[in-house]
Amino acid sequence: MNIIDIINKTKKSTELTDKEIRWLVENYTDGEIPDYQMSAWLMSVCINGLTERETVSLTEAMRDSGDILDLSGIGSVTADKHSTGGVGDKTSLIIGPTAAACGIAVPKMSGRGLGHTGGTIDKLESISGYRTELPFYEFAEIVRKTGFSIISQSGNLCPADKKIYSLRNATGTVDSIPLICASIMSKKLALNADGILLDVKCGSGAFMKTRSDAEKLAVLMEKVGKSAGKKCRAVVTDMDSPLGNNIGNALEVREAVEILQGKYKGRLYDLCMKLTANMLELAGKGTFEECLGFAENAVSSGKALEVLRETIRLHSGDCRICDDVSLLPQPRYSYEVRAVHDMKILGINSEEIGMTSLILGAGRLTKDDIIDMSAGIVMNCAVGDCISADDTIMTLYSSTCSDFSEAVFRAVNSLKFCSI
Amino acid sequence: MNIIDIINKTKKSTELTDKEIRWLVENYTDGEIPDYQMSAWLMSVCINGLTERETVSLTEAMRDSGDILDLSGIGSVTADKHSTGGVGDKTSLIIGPTAAACGIAVPKMSGRGLGHTGGTIDKLESISGYRTELPFYEFAEIVRKTGFSIISQSGNLCPADKKIYSLRNATGTVDSIPLICASIMSKKLALNADGILLDVKCGSGAFMKTRSDAEKLAVLMEKVGKSAGKKCRAVVTDMDSPLGNNIGNALEVREAVEILQGKYKGRLYDLCMKLTANMLELAGKGTFEECLGFAENAVSSGKALEVLRETIRLHSGDCRICDDVSLLPQPRYSYEVRAVHDMKILGINSEEIGMTSLILGAGRLTKDDIIDMSAGIVMNCAVGDCISADDTIMTLYSSTCSDFSEAVFRAVNSLKFCSI
Repeated sequence: MNIIDIINKTKKSTELTDKEIRWLVENYTDGEIPDYQMSAWLMSVCINGLTERETVSLTEAMRDSGDILDLSGIGSVTADKHSTGGVGDKTSLIIGPTAAACGIAVPKMSGRGLGHTGGTIDKLESISGYRTELPFYEFAEIVRKTGFSIISQSGNLCPADKKIYSLRNATGTVDSIPLICASIMSKKLALNADGILLDVKCGSGAFMKTRSDAEKLAVLMEKVGKSAGKKCRAVVTDMDSPLGNNIGNALEVREAVEILQGKYKGRLYDLCMKLTANMLELAGKGTFEECLGFAENAVSSGKALEVLRETIRLHSGDCRICDDVSLLPQPRYSYEVRAVHDMKILGINSEEIGMTSLILGAGRLTKDDIIDMSAGIVMNCAVGDCISADDTIMTLYSSTCSDFSEAVFRAVNSLKFCSI
Repeated sequence: MNIIDIINKTKKSTELTDKEIRWLVENYTDGEIPDYQMSAWLMSVCINGLTERETVSLTEAMRDSGDILDLSGIGSVTADKHSTGGVGDKTSLIIGPTAAACGIAVPKMSGRGLGHTGGTIDKLESISGYRTELPFYEFAEIVRKTGFSIISQSGNLCPADKKIYSLRNATGTVDSIPLICASIMSKKLALNADGILLDVKCGSGAFMKTRSDAEKLAVLMEKVGKSAGKKCRAVVTDMDSPLGNNIGNALEVREAVEILQGKYKGRLYDLCMKLTANMLELAGKGTFEECLGFAENAVSSGKALEVLRETIRLHSGDCRICDDVSLLPQPRYSYEVRAVHDMKILGINSEEIGMTSLILGAGRLTKDDIIDMSAGIVMNCAVGDCISADDTIMTLYSSTCSDFSEAVFRAVNSLKFCSI
């Protein structure tokens, strides 16, 4: 087998064999194939695509490049949930405890944020003391006890994905549905839960800008998961405007806790209940309607919050935040963005809100940037709301940035409105 | 400007600006852009193509990456000829002296062979003493005196092409008409002759397998040449079977000398006269018919052979070979491939004949291989000929390989015939 033949095949849209794909992934991971040859292949995939069978082979070869976890010791049915990410997406912090409270185990590995989207690990680290890097045995033990744990991606899971992803980032080959599928699914398959729920976000704040692309990715990931022997379901959810009212690390933990406290309903709550019900149904807990009932009950009874409290405690985090959210990092500065005249909100651009949050200190532009945990935005309105002159549209928070001028500019820019 | 934006544009078939292309070529040549980003761009060109305007920009940016020769001191109108190469192509050794004998100057730089095609420089080095590496002033002086010289590509001509070509070779991005055009034309434009004749070969032994691709390349190169202010003409010629009877370095010099001695006519002679007439017409020497007469007269009068003799002498080569071809390197071993039964030759696959020649020692598989100058093939038949049982179809020669079994196998494989 040789790399030039493989590149030429994909360049001419000729299907590669399983053996060729495995050889490619193994030799690239081992450093036998140089970056300049791999990037030529990735570009030919980006333009010509891969067949479904090739995508399955690629995903499985990437999964097999490192360790595959053994979750059998956990005892319960395990389920993993992945969201393709978006601005204000704190669903994992709500769904995990809720699903666990309904009797399934949710072992989750998450990443850090880069650019305008946040990372679940960063959010958890806004809880004083919470350890995100645990050895596997401790992670499995917490999941066994509470049904839920989230740690940072670690160990030797999918080294091929790490290497390929960083090359894609540097070579304009990120926006390819088969490559996105292989990157996500190889990590899910290596984590090795019994069931996988995939939440594909679609809209301005998401990676998939159109519904049609989001659906293609959803269908493909579901097929790849099933072909690897997993119970797998993918749903497409809207991400045209930010999810929930709070954006920023501590602010999002606060909103998740408040949802679990039963304080708020609305779009975020509804989505979390729907996703949890999907996970429970996938795990064989009943019909979708029954599972929705279980999920809602887990929240209203306080059982889900109890799971979160216990999980935070076992991670050495300050679990008192579950009862008193003011113990989360508090911002030093704030700024209220007010309506100049009476207006109706027609849209909120998630990407611009994400950029605003980044400017306030809540995100990273480069891997080494330090995050201001208290920074972020609290929205005071949703799409469709009418606001009177001088009412607060949103409040900006920061401990590191006292000059809000740039952030306000981006924040106002994120709004689509008409005068009324 | 940034490389990811440029890659993304070509990936999405959005036209690049002249500035962007120039920035790309300059920064890649300087080592600012790494190979893995350039190869991703090259692959997107390979699949999506470039517009005519982009190809012109790319060619001119590559030309400007190094020196551009000043041939004004030569005095006569200068003309350059390029053939896209093929098995048995010794046309430069015939056309150059013939055109020079008709009063134009032909300064030529050539390359070495790799794989199944030969290189003009290797052929010339089969002449004892011939120096292929000369400083520019000596090269120009020989052209001024005899009207003709061929030296090895040297100096700082088109460093961008050298770097890009070797990356294309390693990344499956060779077969792209705009990239082939830019590679050839950037070197032609840097050599900077007044007129450029392009001979695009088409068929099994050529890089362009189909007439349609060959015509596309011809049209594109002509446009690029004219757009850079050159007199430029491209013709497409057939390369389905080898050109002439001899394949191999000394054997091809011998055939060229014999053509200039007036010993042979036929397909090779006709093609050389036609190409020479095109060059003369391009240089304003008369109509095509008149120029064809000048070319034929230059050969029949012996003037063309005299140019070759003098040029070899000024290159310190043994110019007695122009009168006695037996002074060229002679092979130690030979093998006659004979017809097993009466047959008609329907086709001769040039690529297979080239591979036979390579096995006999006449070519290189890697850059560092040493060539057997005496090795090669003399064809005893042409396409359409009928051959009786036991007649010689071709003779194989070598000084390094006394076991002809593999070469015979490839040689027989190159023939398409039917029994009669």
